[in-house]
Amino acid sequence: METLKPLLQLESLRPLFKEGRFGIEKESQRMDQEGDLAKTDHPSIFGNRNFHPSIQTDFSETQLELITPVADSAKEVLNYLAAIHEVVLRSLPEEEAIWPLSMPPALPKKEEDIMIAKLERNEDVLYRRYLALAYGKRKQMVSGIHYNFEFSKEFLQQLYQEQTSYADYVSFETNVYLKVARNYLRYRWLIVYLLGAAPVSEPGYFTDCHHRKPKEPVRSLRTSDFGYTNHDDVFVSYETIDRYVDDIHRLVETGVLSEEKEFYSPVRLRGEKRVADLKQHGIHYIEIRNIDLNPFAPYGIDEKTIEFLQFFLMLMLWIDPLETDADQLLKVGNKRNNEVSLEHPLTKTSYYEEGHMLLTQMKEMAKALHLLENECELINWVEELLENPQKTLSGQLVTEYEEGLANADLGKVLGWKNKAQALEKPYQLAGFRDMELSTQILMFDAIQKGIDVTVLDRQDQILRLSYADHVEYVKKANMTSLDNYIVPLIMENKTVTKKLLAQAGFKVPRGREFSSVKEALNASELFLNKGFVVKPKSTNYGIGISIFKEGASFEAYQEAVEIAFKEDQAVLVEEFIEGTEYRFFTIDGQVKAVMLRVPANVVGDGVKRIDELVADKNKNPLRGTHHRAPLQLIELGTIETLMLKEQGYTPETVLPKGVTAYLRENSNVSTGGDSIDVTEEMLDSYKQIAGDAAKSLGAVISGMDLIIFDPKKEGKKDSDSYAIIEANFNPAMHMHAYPESGKGRRLTRDVLDLLFKELPKD
Amino acid sequence: METLKPLLQLESLRPLFKEGRFGIEKESQRMDQEGDLAKTDHPSIFGNRNFHPSIQTDFSETQLELITPVADSAKEVLNYLAAIHEVVLRSLPEEEAIWPLSMPPALPKKEEDIMIAKLERNEDVLYRRYLALAYGKRKQMVSGIHYNFEFSKEFLQQLYQEQTSYADYVSFETNVYLKVARNYLRYRWLIVYLLGAAPVSEPGYFTDCHHRKPKEPVRSLRTSDFGYTNHDDVFVSYETIDRYVDDIHRLVETGVLSEEKEFYSPVRLRGEKRVADLKQHGIHYIEIRNIDLNPFAPYGIDEKTIEFLQFFLMLMLWIDPLETDADQLLKVGNKRNNEVSLEHPLTKTSYYEEGHMLLTQMKEMAKALHLLENECELINWVEELLENPQKTLSGQLVTEYEEGLANADLGKVLGWKNKAQALEKPYQLAGFRDMELSTQILMFDAIQKGIDVTVLDRQDQILRLSYADHVEYVKKANMTSLDNYIVPLIMENKTVTKKLLAQAGFKVPRGREFSSVKEALNASELFLNKGFVVKPKSTNYGIGISIFKEGASFEAYQEAVEIAFKEDQAVLVEEFIEGTEYRFFTIDGQVKAVMLRVPANVVGDGVKRIDELVADKNKNPLRGTHHRAPLQLIELGTIETLMLKEQGYTPETVLPKGVTAYLRENSNVSTGGDSIDVTEEMLDSYKQIAGDAAKSLGAVISGMDLIIFDPKKEGKKDSDSYAIIEANFNPAMHMHAYPESGKGRRLTRDVLDLLFKELPKD
Repeated sequence: METLKPLLQLESLRPLFKEGRFGIEKESQRMDQEGDLAKTDHPSIFGNRNFHPSIQTDFSETQLELITPVADSAKEVLNYLAAIHEVVLRSLPEEEAIWPLSMPPALPKKEEDIMIAKLERNEDVLYRRYLALAYGKRKQMVSGIHYNFEFSKEFLQQLYQEQTSYADYVSFETNVYLKVARNYLRYRWLIVYLLGAAPVSEPGYFTDCHHRKPKEPVRSLRTSDFGYTNHDDVFVSYETIDRYVDDIHRLVETGVLSEEKEFYSPVRLRGEKRVADLKQHGIHYIEIRNIDLNPFAPYGIDEKTIEFLQFFLMLMLWIDPLETDADQLLKVGNKRNNEVSLEHPLTKTSYYEEGHMLLTQMKEMAKALHLLENECELINWVEELLENPQKTLSGQLVTEYEEGLANADLGKVLGWKNKAQALEKPYQLAGFRDMELSTQILMFDAIQKGIDVTVLDRQDQILRLSYADHVEYVKKANMTSLDNYIVPLIMENKTVTKKLLAQAGFKVPRGREFSSVKEALNASELFLNKGFVVKPKSTNYGIGISIFKEGASFEAYQEAVEIAFKEDQAVLVEEFIEGTEYRFFTIDGQVKAVMLRVPANVVGDGVKRIDELVADKNKNPLRGTHHRAPLQLIELGTIETLMLKEQGYTPETVLPKGVTAYLRENSNVSTGGDSIDVTEEMLDSYKQIAGDAAKSLGAVISGMDLIIFDPKKEGKKDSDSYAIIEANFNPAMHMHAYPESGKGRRLTRDVLDLLFKELPKD
Repeated sequence: METLKPLLQLESLRPLFKEGRFGIEKESQRMDQEGDLAKTDHPSIFGNRNFHPSIQTDFSETQLELITPVADSAKEVLNYLAAIHEVVLRSLPEEEAIWPLSMPPALPKKEEDIMIAKLERNEDVLYRRYLALAYGKRKQMVSGIHYNFEFSKEFLQQLYQEQTSYADYVSFETNVYLKVARNYLRYRWLIVYLLGAAPVSEPGYFTDCHHRKPKEPVRSLRTSDFGYTNHDDVFVSYETIDRYVDDIHRLVETGVLSEEKEFYSPVRLRGEKRVADLKQHGIHYIEIRNIDLNPFAPYGIDEKTIEFLQFFLMLMLWIDPLETDADQLLKVGNKRNNEVSLEHPLTKTSYYEEGHMLLTQMKEMAKALHLLENECELINWVEELLENPQKTLSGQLVTEYEEGLANADLGKVLGWKNKAQALEKPYQLAGFRDMELSTQILMFDAIQKGIDVTVLDRQDQILRLSYADHVEYVKKANMTSLDNYIVPLIMENKTVTKKLLAQAGFKVPRGREFSSVKEALNASELFLNKGFVVKPKSTNYGIGISIFKEGASFEAYQEAVEIAFKEDQAVLVEEFIEGTEYRFFTIDGQVKAVMLRVPANVVGDGVKRIDELVADKNKNPLRGTHHRAPLQLIELGTIETLMLKEQGYTPETVLPKGVTAYLRENSNVSTGGDSIDVTEEMLDSYKQIAGDAAKSLGAVISGMDLIIFDPKKEGKKDSDSYAIIEANFNPAMHMHAYPESGKGRRLTRDVLDLLFKELPKD
């Protein structure tokens, strides 16, 4: 293939060259509290094991394989990897965490005690049995990262237009990836130098029957030929796609390999299920397999590394190798890789010079492509590590050992640190903390159950969920295909909603709609001498609402009406309903949760001051700010102090035992209010009413707000025991999942079960 | 019943007393161009005749009966009546209109030539045959208004709380309506005096066999005993509900009446299907039947009259009658009614004094109830008419005759004037002209086909449509239950829509989304040297969009990006697609209309100046302002003049024959652009693509905007022959129904057919 340097610098190509698609697979072992290999089965909570898209088991039952969807950036792919990790760590038994190192923890003396993954498909089990025989179970226990990378289609298509060596696109694309693969194999020793992180082995990895053993520590046992690699008689050429395919076939036919996938090259050519098809359809991406787990990164790899690997693969397309003979080049690469893998982590690498050659090429490329700070930092980082071996991953690890922290303890400590971190904010999902809580919780449940999740739009909270061939789209966690379009349009119109509920025989506040102040004032007599409420027709969060519990003067009425008309062209005046307001969350006519919201408050203990009680209450990890937590911190600002004053308190008041002081009048959770789950206590008669009301509106998912006069007395549909004051579409779900008190309700699960009726039930 | 005056004045009751519900039935004859009785059948276009809720036939095949839904105000009920009239007048054959008088036009010599309504239900036909025998067909031909009125439930319930005469609500409600009915029967002569409008008869109404004949003109033949009334042996008491029911039953049993409904009282007690049930369930409203058609009101009755009748019925509840004996009272009422009916229209009525007594009561009530200008005007109107008989309806008619306009000609002229008016703006619907055109057109089609239409919210354009027991809700004419909720949410997100379309294999403009100016500027190289478009992510009506057909400088790009970010937090930059933009309106995957929109323009004739050509083009009745017409007037402001200048023209330029001058760059219809239907010309391959694309998004109703490179060349899904630039939910329909040129497409009908699959197809 001609050199591509001139083409890659073209203004039209430069920006596209920087784009790519990423996918990561990460293996790792489950461990127990002592840092020993877990003895339990793969958790059943992950649902169907056959086709879980993101949580699988690799060789052994204890070996998790976490798989991200394909993403368009390093940041995005890491977000998915982070989310999957949190799902796993929170789903594992309390006494289990993830072993953070590539080399496994101490292995059982008896090889038979290493459990092969208990998969359902027979061929999967048979294959693993074969591997156990061919390589021994122990080597199968090492873990690493598989890094899948694809250049932007647009980039390859335009590059194809510019180049002259290839007449058809498929063979051009194929040879692009072949060149990258060859160069990567040739220069991968640098990756091992920088990222190698498997210096030592634990008892049971090398068995007595082993003749030779390396002198530990090294940079990476895993990437050396002490790792899990094919036997020496396996050589596959990367010169052309035909030779690549034919070599693999020969090896399988001659029984050297049991199957195509037994060919464990550090670089696999990908794009088709069967290797044979690569000839015709070509290569569409490559899989890099020689990346050790980074024990210092909570997810085994960090963003900088993902970006660097992309940059390195770009470099592999950019440079033209010294060796012209493709097979020769591979042999050189393999030799250097093995040597560097087995170097002492704190020594300079013996290929230091070639390292600098690569650095020069990096700088040349960065300049030619007008790359920005980001890439320059990467280059500096490589330069620094070339000079300072102790700063490489293996270098850092060995330094830890020398400071007295044994490898085993290090694995245990780091692994449990990660677990603790994952449990800190169970209502959030790493990688997606900027999204709405309800969406984060839904994503958690979906990933756990093996539903493939793709975020189509973060800002708009739009997800694609797919389970096998069944695809659903979800916005804001419960706006779905389950509801038909007209229902939310009706619900967002308070007047129409009331009309329909009333016609269906439900109690709603009597009232009138007015389209002008004059009109409203003419009707004043209807309201003044009873309790009433004035609100804008399409009000939100109580803006522009005035409540007069015992009627009001004409002047007060007039003022309230004018305030409301500032918010909307139409205003509702309704009778005030006595009682307590409850939120009924209904799905498909069934009430799944009932919530009571109480204004921000503290209860005295006879010792502490109110401000201290507030501080204590705010210690609840469920409380936070900016809707990043299911409950909000209670403030002590002017409104709150005023509210206290009305009760005869100051923040310094020591509140008598059992006495409640309120810091707010409104019960909104967003101003520090308490959310109390009362699903069990609520009488069925009210649940029936709320469920039927939602059904009568045609709503599948809705939040019905009922005011109940006396929750202890049974409700009757046509009695004044209750009134429906609002029907909400897209009702919040996170507050039900993590209430201040009472049982949490996993409504996100109910939504998923309704969307995917085929999901296995727990 | 105790006097209610003190209670009705209570502050809590006063406002409720003024509320009520209204329903109007209006009979009238179809006539031909000569003003003669139509000889055609009831038009089949009105669909199923058995249960058309608003357009029926009464006794004869030519006698239309128009029925409004129940409404909450005089204004509202008149709106429905107006709409139904326009539907009928536009649906009738060109050579037919509606006879505006209560007395029929000249009737055929041979009675058998009067066609009995050709109804499908046998009992309906039999009943009419019986009536023909019992009363003769001729009298059956008179027409009038039936005015149904119900006091506000809330009012009656609260009044019941206050009163002391009745122990149960049902009998209280019943006696309220009985009192109103009695008083109305007693004092109805005043209604005849004011609103009587049947002074003379046309040939064929009185036949030779008739012994006696009144001396015409009179105030109202129809309400006199020369009208269509029961024979003298029919007397039914209104003293109690029991007597009322028993009397009617006796008459039926003794065969004096064939059925309950043959009892033609000027006031019917309503609430139950069978009269017998009134005893148990009570009366819920009353039906006033002695209102003549007002020939001067386009719909046979005007708002003032509807309000006055309500006011009069309130008065009937207010006053306590002189006569204590209920039957005696009725006899007096009947006698006076007949006398006044037969008075000469230009004479003072002989019950002038009693008229003043009623006036005094009206004033007393108005004062006690704090009534406003409106009611005072009504009182003044009555007062004025009492003094000036010539101002009454019959008075006005007789004046017309005396000035030489024969009654028959008057009927013809007024009837055809109404028809002309109804045809003026076929894209609007009387009574609802403030609503969106698409909604008005949908309502027209629904009413025509016998779908019951209720406007639930004018502002929000929300309708309830029902056909038999099948109810559907519609917002903005095509937001319905047909689409599921997530689809429009996806469509309103341009990026997600493009992702899904691209994944489904459709062509969309290549592009990127950016969330910051910096991000967008870093990617500038992707776009600058080709044509591109910069737009806010959630843009509307082209706000914040910049188009660079041949690429642009970095500075121009930067400026465009900054403009776009002023509109949204996210901005899309896309390649510019060469070609012509078409709107494909798709329903259920089928393309029902294709529209080409062309910027405002005029074509020269070599004689006229551009400003004259614009004036001519603006004469098109389809052009209007403020979206009250399917096309907008072309303006000649600065933008237009500038645009002309760029082409080397001024408004005064005389444009050569066949040469087109554009007054706008943008093709929006809202700025005077032309809408051209090209549904037939468009190649099927593109329709297929548009339909499939909509389907792939799951959209049932949508407007797909395609840019087509060469509309003459076949389109291929995976080729660059086209690109989908937008998918719109709730696409406009009126512009397809009334295009500037090409065939109109009745998409509203398609929507109705899809919503109501059971609708009979034409």
